[in-house]
Amino acid sequence: MTGRLSGSGRLSTRDRIIGAVDDVLAADLDATAARLQEISPVAAELIDPLRAFTARGKRIRALVTWWGFEIASRTPADPEALARIAGSVELLHAAALVHDDIIDDSDTRRGRPAVHAAFRDGHRTDVWEGDPVLFGTGAGIIAGDLCLSLSEEMYTAAGLPGLLAPEVVRRHDDFRRDVMVGQYLDIRLQAAPVPAADIAARAEEVLTFKSAKYSVEQPLLLGAAIGGADGGLLEALSAFGLPLGRAFQMRDDELGVFGDPAVTGKPAGDDLRQGKKTVLVGMTLTALAEAGRDDDAAWFSARLGAADLEDAEVDRMAALMRDSGAVAAFEDAIETRMHEARGALEDLRTRADLHADDVELLDFYVRTLTHRTS
Amino acid sequence: MTGRLSGSGRLSTRDRIIGAVDDVLAADLDATAARLQEISPVAAELIDPLRAFTARGKRIRALVTWWGFEIASRTPADPEALARIAGSVELLHAAALVHDDIIDDSDTRRGRPAVHAAFRDGHRTDVWEGDPVLFGTGAGIIAGDLCLSLSEEMYTAAGLPGLLAPEVVRRHDDFRRDVMVGQYLDIRLQAAPVPAADIAARAEEVLTFKSAKYSVEQPLLLGAAIGGADGGLLEALSAFGLPLGRAFQMRDDELGVFGDPAVTGKPAGDDLRQGKKTVLVGMTLTALAEAGRDDDAAWFSARLGAADLEDAEVDRMAALMRDSGAVAAFEDAIETRMHEARGALEDLRTRADLHADDVELLDFYVRTLTHRTS
Repeated sequence: MTGRLSGSGRLSTRDRIIGAVDDVLAADLDATAARLQEISPVAAELIDPLRAFTARGKRIRALVTWWGFEIASRTPADPEALARIAGSVELLHAAALVHDDIIDDSDTRRGRPAVHAAFRDGHRTDVWEGDPVLFGTGAGIIAGDLCLSLSEEMYTAAGLPGLLAPEVVRRHDDFRRDVMVGQYLDIRLQAAPVPAADIAARAEEVLTFKSAKYSVEQPLLLGAAIGGADGGLLEALSAFGLPLGRAFQMRDDELGVFGDPAVTGKPAGDDLRQGKKTVLVGMTLTALAEAGRDDDAAWFSARLGAADLEDAEVDRMAALMRDSGAVAAFEDAIETRMHEARGALEDLRTRADLHADDVELLDFYVRTLTHRTS
Repeated sequence: MTGRLSGSGRLSTRDRIIGAVDDVLAADLDATAARLQEISPVAAELIDPLRAFTARGKRIRALVTWWGFEIASRTPADPEALARIAGSVELLHAAALVHDDIIDDSDTRRGRPAVHAAFRDGHRTDVWEGDPVLFGTGAGIIAGDLCLSLSEEMYTAAGLPGLLAPEVVRRHDDFRRDVMVGQYLDIRLQAAPVPAADIAARAEEVLTFKSAKYSVEQPLLLGAAIGGADGGLLEALSAFGLPLGRAFQMRDDELGVFGDPAVTGKPAGDDLRQGKKTVLVGMTLTALAEAGRDDDAAWFSARLGAADLEDAEVDRMAALMRDSGAVAAFEDAIETRMHEARGALEDLRTRADLHADDVELLDFYVRTLTHRTS
């Protein structure tokens, strides 16, 4: 296995990439803090929360971007330039998370205060003027905007001549735009009434844009496009990355219901308590309706997201998901997407312009990265 | 006068530029709407509010960017490429305004609902699930982020080879970043207690970053850098644009207190009711303290921004601004900055690499654009 997975030696290891990206991010935020400090010590206050925020995380998107480049490129990367591209992807992600926490009114992120919550709490502690919540929201919006700007700065600063090539521009544009589209699809799906029969498809649309494309497919394609991949290779990589990303996120949704809180870090049934319209919820309602269990479906819909939802009700919802056959159908849907990804992998393996061993290693890396356990 | 102001014929007229920028913005938003429509009709909902929002406005920044290019460039611009650069500047501005209205909790913009307010009101009217305010804030944040992304897309799509030149990258980075810094300096100044003696300097810092650089200096430098201006010319243009932008914004602050509501579109004394710490407020508190009028200063501070501020009190505050000598000192400060700008203009006029007539015309255009009447 080790032999098979050593590849052609061109794909960098996870540790090496993370080290290079961490260094670039730290150096860039230090430089930005120094520049803002010159303007005013007040301006520099924007950087500390971003520093703490970007220092964490699994760097999935940075890694996938880097490997996308390496698998496509005929020449080795300038590691510092590539670290900037991968770092800019992480900053884009951080910006999206900073804004996401305001949008979802979520006070914590990875066990620490969300950026807007930290600004809000600071305002309260220091007994400043005006509304602490409005100040926190404002400062969080600005910090996210700044983070998005720093992502653009870092991307351009990589200075790679290929950055203005049409395929690269297109991938970068899609990447940046689609995560915002996914965010809107999500809050819109949660807000407006949706026929039960449409929930699964709409929820898969959300996870496609908010997660599958953004976490796997697009960083892979961006890296590959910068590495000089042609249209055919980009399509083949998309056929691998998109279903894999979908399967990854669907597994995550399942863990939101059935996962072990000690592993997921979220209370059991968290998504049910929040009333989230997920693919699994949609499939459950459809399965109950098809089985003529209208009372169960009505109860499920009515209690989903109820403020006074009790533990026993969460258990009953989970049981309905299982005994309606929705969980089995959901597992099938995940397997279908994994099957698609494996088929695309076969195609990639036979391509003359790729090292078969690199393809193997890419698959192993990405699957390991996106693997979740209950 | 007409003869002197006809220039060398290289500076485009205001109408021609606005027409070209309007066309590019409309075409770009149509194309984006079509792309989002392919994803989902829901996704396309994000575009209509942006379309309405970007269709208005005086296009100050687009015009200044365009003239900056024309004054510096030795060759005529590709009008479509330049319209994209100028259009991207307008989209950046629109994004900042969309977020600004959330940050300031302001429901209207140019007499119409702010973007987040329109989303919030739509949620209420359609009786959707969840909190309408949270939905409006979320959708507004996302719409602003999307607008910022479209600005980047349009900028890159101009396809000018010079866009990766270090001077150009630096100006674009500064432009994008400084408006966010200015936003934070502003909410931070309004939130935290500040010694009265520091208010004027801190408020000028805010207007420098939030307005002077962003509305005049930076679009001018960005256009000029893209037009091939060297470091010396950029410095000379900065010496003209920055004080002019400061004077422009200070005049605006004055109108916030003494302006005719029929002209400014804001109620008289609006800034005083909001309790904004402006340069003029800072100068008033300093002048009162210097004159030993501590009781007046204490009253002024206590009533500034009071929820129950009466018209007679607004009148008394305005009277204190005048009779303390603060308004005269403020006028002097505006004149000092205009004097700086005129001095810089003399230097620009004598440069061998510029047409003196173009410089004259630029000054006329920019001053007309930034001229306000009470």
